[in-house]
Amino acid sequence: MNLENETDIGKAAESPGLPPLRFSELLEKKVILQDWGEYEDFFRFSSNVGKIDEGSVLVKVGNGFELIQGFPKIKRAIMLAPALKNHFKDIYSVAVEEKMNGYNVRVIEHKGELVAFTRSGHVCPYSSERSGHLLEHDFFKDYPEYVVYGEMVGPDNPYVPKDIYGVDSLEFFVFDIRSREGIALPLHERRELASDYGFTQVELLGEFELGEAADRIREIITELGKKEHEGVIIKDPSMILQPLKYTTSQTNCADLRHGFRFYNESGKDYLFARVVREGFQSVEWNESEEEIKDRCLRLGESIIRPMRESILRVQEGERIRDDVRIRVKDESTIDRFRMYLERLGLDVIFSPLERIGDEYVVNIRKMNKSTTDKTLGIIEGQLWS
Amino acid sequence: MNLENETDIGKAAESPGLPPLRFSELLEKKVILQDWGEYEDFFRFSSNVGKIDEGSVLVKVGNGFELIQGFPKIKRAIMLAPALKNHFKDIYSVAVEEKMNGYNVRVIEHKGELVAFTRSGHVCPYSSERSGHLLEHDFFKDYPEYVVYGEMVGPDNPYVPKDIYGVDSLEFFVFDIRSREGIALPLHERRELASDYGFTQVELLGEFELGEAADRIREIITELGKKEHEGVIIKDPSMILQPLKYTTSQTNCADLRHGFRFYNESGKDYLFARVVREGFQSVEWNESEEEIKDRCLRLGESIIRPMRESILRVQEGERIRDDVRIRVKDESTIDRFRMYLERLGLDVIFSPLERIGDEYVVNIRKMNKSTTDKTLGIIEGQLWS
Repeated sequence: MNLENETDIGKAAESPGLPPLRFSELLEKKVILQDWGEYEDFFRFSSNVGKIDEGSVLVKVGNGFELIQGFPKIKRAIMLAPALKNHFKDIYSVAVEEKMNGYNVRVIEHKGELVAFTRSGHVCPYSSERSGHLLEHDFFKDYPEYVVYGEMVGPDNPYVPKDIYGVDSLEFFVFDIRSREGIALPLHERRELASDYGFTQVELLGEFELGEAADRIREIITELGKKEHEGVIIKDPSMILQPLKYTTSQTNCADLRHGFRFYNESGKDYLFARVVREGFQSVEWNESEEEIKDRCLRLGESIIRPMRESILRVQEGERIRDDVRIRVKDESTIDRFRMYLERLGLDVIFSPLERIGDEYVVNIRKMNKSTTDKTLGIIEGQLWS
Repeated sequence: MNLENETDIGKAAESPGLPPLRFSELLEKKVILQDWGEYEDFFRFSSNVGKIDEGSVLVKVGNGFELIQGFPKIKRAIMLAPALKNHFKDIYSVAVEEKMNGYNVRVIEHKGELVAFTRSGHVCPYSSERSGHLLEHDFFKDYPEYVVYGEMVGPDNPYVPKDIYGVDSLEFFVFDIRSREGIALPLHERRELASDYGFTQVELLGEFELGEAADRIREIITELGKKEHEGVIIKDPSMILQPLKYTTSQTNCADLRHGFRFYNESGKDYLFARVVREGFQSVEWNESEEEIKDRCLRLGESIIRPMRESILRVQEGERIRDDVRIRVKDESTIDRFRMYLERLGLDVIFSPLERIGDEYVVNIRKMNKSTTDKTLGIIEGQLWS
């Protein structure tokens, strides 16, 4: 599509309700960005514009455009009981689903293929191929107006690989079905519909009256923590009120362990937020002296041990990196995924592909140049100014 | 002084070597700021301008102006041995002085009174009064071109009160004597001169050949750590090379304990830097599994316990605050110090003054509104967005 074409710009503007002039302005200011290569039918919003959230995508459909709303930001309960009481005060009960630790995507069908958008609105070639194999296409034929939201989870995960879910390769766990404008189906309706099409879904852990919800969720969180699982999403079953998230101490600490391996790259806000949660959870759970000590040790170890490991690695001449893996059916996905990561600014090294059954496995090394260089500098006597 | 007076502006500009136009420009842009009240003879630099460091001060002297250089930023060794080897490679030995935990000031005499500047170049009324009682005035008569640099340490300290040094009230520990342009006297010459005038000085902990310095300093740091002392400044005895600082794990943790009490006010950079130091020290010191575990627990406790305490306090209806104390001879210092803190934007509550001997003691409550409000919000169910 040629964006210099006035007519196209006018049409693109129709869907999100922006006047044509504003739309071309936003393109020029790079608030709206066109995807590349085979995905140039897609335009993502790099920031909020009126009621259109960052990460929303405009999709070229025929001669017009359609808007797909961004991934809704789910707010976090820091202190569970008062947050539940406050946020869900007008409803009778809440449903609790597992919050899985992977990466979330929104999937639609476009020109006969499934397309998966990341949170920021990029089309991820790997997630798109995988979704194509993991999700029943009939659903999208029957409900072209719906968007399927899910968490991609498992070890063959180039973003957040996890072995803790008993997933062999990569699975798509549906957690939401929404209209393109972002309106969610009620929870039970969504679970039934997804089940009708054989979708794998996140686990429904229970539905509780508001008065007992905090206690029940705490029990759930304790059990999930033992397995290093991430936490829960607490939902209004009618999906009218926004959901809340609440996570285990163990996942906070796992995030910190990962973050401090790449201490010079991880955002300080990211690390700080996880530390603060620990303090509040400790108070809310009325911890004994022994439990407090355990939590302190767990937190300290999540910080010091990964840093030690990274420093020792650099001392031994290694470079700090994050090793991940993908598994594809279509060989061409590999190159398209590499280009995608490089466009995002990542420094990646792809291993030669290995054929396993009817699929190819490729190991990807994401190089952490900033942490490597900083560590090397300090080892060589560089000062902290 | 009327700054609209062209002649004065011209004269003010003479000393730092700025053309008059530039000087009045900097005043207008608030890069140079005039102090207030009785201190309007002083103009501080709020950022670096050419070779003039942030915190430098222009002092009106007669009809002209003199520049007093800012406090030199002392760089930090993260890994001690390579940092020493690298930074001091051209000299034979280094001198090690204690780095005390207080706040540093620069002192000059102006119109017959001692004036103490903080790091940012403000005149602190309290520090000025105290310096007047703690430092021998003859020195300033005999060496009007010199600036005395020192750490103000002890419990009667409105910034960093510490009981660990056996100081009853507040003491001025000289650590540097420099010309107004910032050129430092050689270490032994400075120690002798300061001693001649009866100044209290920071302790000289030793002078070591470069090859053995890292081991000796590590021994010193271990001993200082046991007393919760802060650390050391490592100096080229001739004071030609810039000094380095290196601190104990215990002082890092004490800083974190203080910082996490006011978790919503403390800078994330401040907290993060202290955490990173722990990882490198642990590796450099080749810690055993037990020592690593101790360090992890110490770090975790420095984070969780003060947060817990603050949250529990707010739950009990208290407001988070930092209680400090000052002790003055001149009653008027109290009001001037209160005005000074309020001008700096602090929310302070002063107790009624109490007469003790020939002095007055006042307790000051520095209110941490941001941490109090954030904590209260979360306790009441506010979400973390």
